[in-house]
Amino acid sequence: LNTFKITVLPENKTIEVSKEKTLHLALAEAGFPIEGTCGGRGTCGKCKIKVIEGQNALSVIPSKKLSHEEIEAGWRLACLIPISEDMIVMLPPKAEEGDRKTHLSGKDYYPINIDLKKKHLVLEKPTLQDQTSDLRRIALELGIEKPQFTPQIIKKAPEVLRKAKFDVTVTYIENKLLDIEVGDTASELYGVAFDIGTTTVVGSLIDLNNGKVIAASAAANLQRGYGADVIARITYVSENNDGLDTLQKKVIETLNNIIENLVNKTGIKRENIYSIATVGNTCMQHLLVGADPTNIAGSPYIPVFQDSINLSAYQLGIETNKESVIYVSPNIAGYVGADTVGVILATELEKSDQLLLAVDIGTNGELVLGNKEKMLSCSTAAGPAFEGAQIKYGMRAADGAIEEVVIDESVNIKVIGNKKPVGICGSGLVDAVAQLVKVGIIEASGRIIAPEEAVDMPEDLVSRIVKGQNGYDFVLYRDVLGKDILLTQKDVRELQLAKGAIYAGIKILAKEFGVEIKDIGKVLLAGAFGNYINIESAKIIKLLPKELEVEQVGNAAGIGSRMIIASDEEKQRADLIAKKVRYIELSSRLDFQDEFITALNFGD
Amino acid sequence: LNTFKITVLPENKTIEVSKEKTLHLALAEAGFPIEGTCGGRGTCGKCKIKVIEGQNALSVIPSKKLSHEEIEAGWRLACLIPISEDMIVMLPPKAEEGDRKTHLSGKDYYPINIDLKKKHLVLEKPTLQDQTSDLRRIALELGIEKPQFTPQIIKKAPEVLRKAKFDVTVTYIENKLLDIEVGDTASELYGVAFDIGTTTVVGSLIDLNNGKVIAASAAANLQRGYGADVIARITYVSENNDGLDTLQKKVIETLNNIIENLVNKTGIKRENIYSIATVGNTCMQHLLVGADPTNIAGSPYIPVFQDSINLSAYQLGIETNKESVIYVSPNIAGYVGADTVGVILATELEKSDQLLLAVDIGTNGELVLGNKEKMLSCSTAAGPAFEGAQIKYGMRAADGAIEEVVIDESVNIKVIGNKKPVGICGSGLVDAVAQLVKVGIIEASGRIIAPEEAVDMPEDLVSRIVKGQNGYDFVLYRDVLGKDILLTQKDVRELQLAKGAIYAGIKILAKEFGVEIKDIGKVLLAGAFGNYINIESAKIIKLLPKELEVEQVGNAAGIGSRMIIASDEEKQRADLIAKKVRYIELSSRLDFQDEFITALNFGD
Repeated sequence: LNTFKITVLPENKTIEVSKEKTLHLALAEAGFPIEGTCGGRGTCGKCKIKVIEGQNALSVIPSKKLSHEEIEAGWRLACLIPISEDMIVMLPPKAEEGDRKTHLSGKDYYPINIDLKKKHLVLEKPTLQDQTSDLRRIALELGIEKPQFTPQIIKKAPEVLRKAKFDVTVTYIENKLLDIEVGDTASELYGVAFDIGTTTVVGSLIDLNNGKVIAASAAANLQRGYGADVIARITYVSENNDGLDTLQKKVIETLNNIIENLVNKTGIKRENIYSIATVGNTCMQHLLVGADPTNIAGSPYIPVFQDSINLSAYQLGIETNKESVIYVSPNIAGYVGADTVGVILATELEKSDQLLLAVDIGTNGELVLGNKEKMLSCSTAAGPAFEGAQIKYGMRAADGAIEEVVIDESVNIKVIGNKKPVGICGSGLVDAVAQLVKVGIIEASGRIIAPEEAVDMPEDLVSRIVKGQNGYDFVLYRDVLGKDILLTQKDVRELQLAKGAIYAGIKILAKEFGVEIKDIGKVLLAGAFGNYINIESAKIIKLLPKELEVEQVGNAAGIGSRMIIASDEEKQRADLIAKKVRYIELSSRLDFQDEFITALNFGD
Repeated sequence: LNTFKITVLPENKTIEVSKEKTLHLALAEAGFPIEGTCGGRGTCGKCKIKVIEGQNALSVIPSKKLSHEEIEAGWRLACLIPISEDMIVMLPPKAEEGDRKTHLSGKDYYPINIDLKKKHLVLEKPTLQDQTSDLRRIALELGIEKPQFTPQIIKKAPEVLRKAKFDVTVTYIENKLLDIEVGDTASELYGVAFDIGTTTVVGSLIDLNNGKVIAASAAANLQRGYGADVIARITYVSENNDGLDTLQKKVIETLNNIIENLVNKTGIKRENIYSIATVGNTCMQHLLVGADPTNIAGSPYIPVFQDSINLSAYQLGIETNKESVIYVSPNIAGYVGADTVGVILATELEKSDQLLLAVDIGTNGELVLGNKEKMLSCSTAAGPAFEGAQIKYGMRAADGAIEEVVIDESVNIKVIGNKKPVGICGSGLVDAVAQLVKVGIIEASGRIIAPEEAVDMPEDLVSRIVKGQNGYDFVLYRDVLGKDILLTQKDVRELQLAKGAIYAGIKILAKEFGVEIKDIGKVLLAGAFGNYINIESAKIIKLLPKELEVEQVGNAAGIGSRMIIASDEEKQRADLIAKKVRYIELSSRLDFQDEFITALNFGD
């Protein structure tokens, strides 16, 4: 009796779990969308679950991260509950995953230019006078001199040819025959372009005959239960013997779920997906192919690979046509990945006469400064705050998140989905802080003033300044049930660290390039967060230089991934870009630390 | 209780078997070297086993194929015994497998000319000033511009590099990095060249740095329990749902056993085998890669593939380095396979000024007539008789086989291993018939005369002519215990069919080529059987035209396989040869039937 049954609501799925694990790990391993940014230490409070049945679980000392009402209602932290009994637990209300991320604001058509092809063939039947073998018969018809064959077509060819009376469709790439089907299926040629984020994975289903985006689907990266950011994931890999395997399986499971969703949405056959392209940060790309990212974490921060990798679906367990060709896009360095290559592809930064600064803020923040002459890049540990991590009421940009804040006599908020607010997302956070800086409740140093310092301010605003754990907090939303949403002093500090790192990174890149900030022609703001952020607010908090023009370019990384899957030329462009961009390592530079400290302030 | 335990002596291995099977199938599946040329119908008598314990097994009605003494001693046919109890059984004394076949009489050195290489690298260690990734660091040192990587090297590289302090050896082929090892292992680069016969498989371990043949090993093809010849194997595939899978697994198990043996013999590491090449008849090549050979069996006799196939070891489950490159040599047609391509390679027939006839007699008999201008080939169902099948006392060329026969006043025999004779192999059979034709005991028509017709013949010979089931038989060896070895009238008929087919094939090839038999410059006799046959006897029985010079070229197919693994140029030569040889289908030709009937006689 070393296993127990855990029934998970609202899915009403039951899993069997051995007793060495915590509930958090068990749920994460079983693929439930449970979060955990502290890596199971009971400190982040993100892995809340409601215990419906389970005496031992309820007797676990409740975390300080939970309110009194939550504790009363049976909410506990899954990472503090050892498996010691059968349980029924309820997951917290699920935010709609990645709503924003699927809106790539990219084109819905990408020019096709690929060697992967399907062709309908009506072949002559063999006779005693023409004993050509099945596969050479096909190769001759395709005009392929030295054909190569996959185990799949070797196995299927004789039966399919005869079932189809030699009227078949063959999928091939250059001289390699991948698959064969009965009849004319030449119009069924699909690929999925993935943008693998640390937090969210987005897949776009592309018709590889005409370049149309047929559907897109996003899902939480199932690795999320093993750490919120890349460092936490790498730590999990280095501290667990099977950590690399586990995280590789989880990201592939995520991809497979998205593929399943795309297939269900559109009614296409998964066997007709013959191509996969991925972009993502270097760590995500490593975990996808099973490369150990451990050495990215410690100086001198060395990845296993930078160059693009070509594999077949069966080698990774991706559930498309088993011979689907996988192009894992090239990375620039340990902390500037293929997602940044995607941004450059999509913005054509590497062809630009004008000096451009691309800023992609996801869980990490990557910067590229360059033009057609040269490109420099760097990475800053910026992201978690903008994605809701380490922020007391932080959450992803999903239903219930405060996404816009305007402060005048009082506080006006806009909530995603027009729901009752349950937290604040990155764009809301930036807005809130900018507005509070503007009215003077947050000083240039980042300190939230005490109510008694708020001279001549509207009464409602003053009443929202409340004593917090560290200094004062500000009530963004007052809830009649007492579930107020606060911006804490600590939240402001987190934001300062994040935006200061990005701003300092921009300064260092300009310095290395030999230009001043004002010489930069334009800022290209990429990523889901960058797409929704209020530019004015971003300039007020000095996330971005206020003197520069800013263009929001949408999820450029994801657009790059679509361009790559649609065109072999874009693949080559990606390979060249990844080699051309020079990476600047900030961590070892004293001048970065100087710039960083200077950039922490909100004032000039 | 649906499984029973079968203990198999002399190995003393115990297997668990479910009761739906026959003992024959169970032993074959478990990899024991049990024969069965009739496919489990109890008619060929080749699957003899001795029942030590097993009442039900002993109560099975003994086959007529067993002598009274054998039945008394507990011998039964395994294919007639259903699994219905625990048993202890003994396999018949094992003949040393393939003694003859491993003596390829080829060179022990083959010039190396391959893209597969190993290189010892002492790399600069990464620093903050040089953050090049592990794999690009390697590729740069190798001068590879656009590297490709296997999952194996992606997984191993970071750990191996650091364990080795960046002193490593990398295996690569063109721009693809296959593997990485600690320290300098550049001298450990091996390949195995296989000759996959229907009956026997031979593997040669080659040092791919210097081309030396380090070891050779032969084993019975473990498919043998599923039928003696290619037609029986194809029948098994088409009559059983998992037949193709089963036979593929069996041949791969055979290859793995040989690899195991080569590794044990030489002490090399199996991970240092990076290359595999195979030749074999078209059916064997199909079963190896999992291609359904069914359509080879029925008109118009269409194979799945002819062109060479490149795979990796892990795709077939071959237990070498998992990224070992496999080259499955090209086939000419459904019944003229890569083994014949190997013969042409080894004999350089396709470069010859002189018109040459290559004859390779294995389980099938393949013929090639040609020179540097053109080449024609055909196949005849010749083999089984020469390899001991369908011959009453037939056996493979192994210890105890009568291999030479000289008849004067009496019968003089030479037995392999100087043992007491237990049967007769192909060369002995040809000798015996030739000698009996010479002394007149066998007539030109093939009839064994009655004793009363043997006028003026030595008394001992006359006394050896005994009444048989069909006409008369001849006692080749008299045994005091009554276990005489006979050449039966039926045996002579089998030999006539086999040699008649080959001779008629030669006639048809000459006709198609537009020449007379006498215009052929030389006969090249290949194959283990061809190597041991007495040429004089072969001419007497009209297996080969008596007017032609005959050169025994050894196991040319196996030599071709060694040439192929040692040189990419030879691989290209093989591809070209397979395309250049024109295949003549004999089965549909009325003129072949005429020639065949004419060629059945022993006289002129």
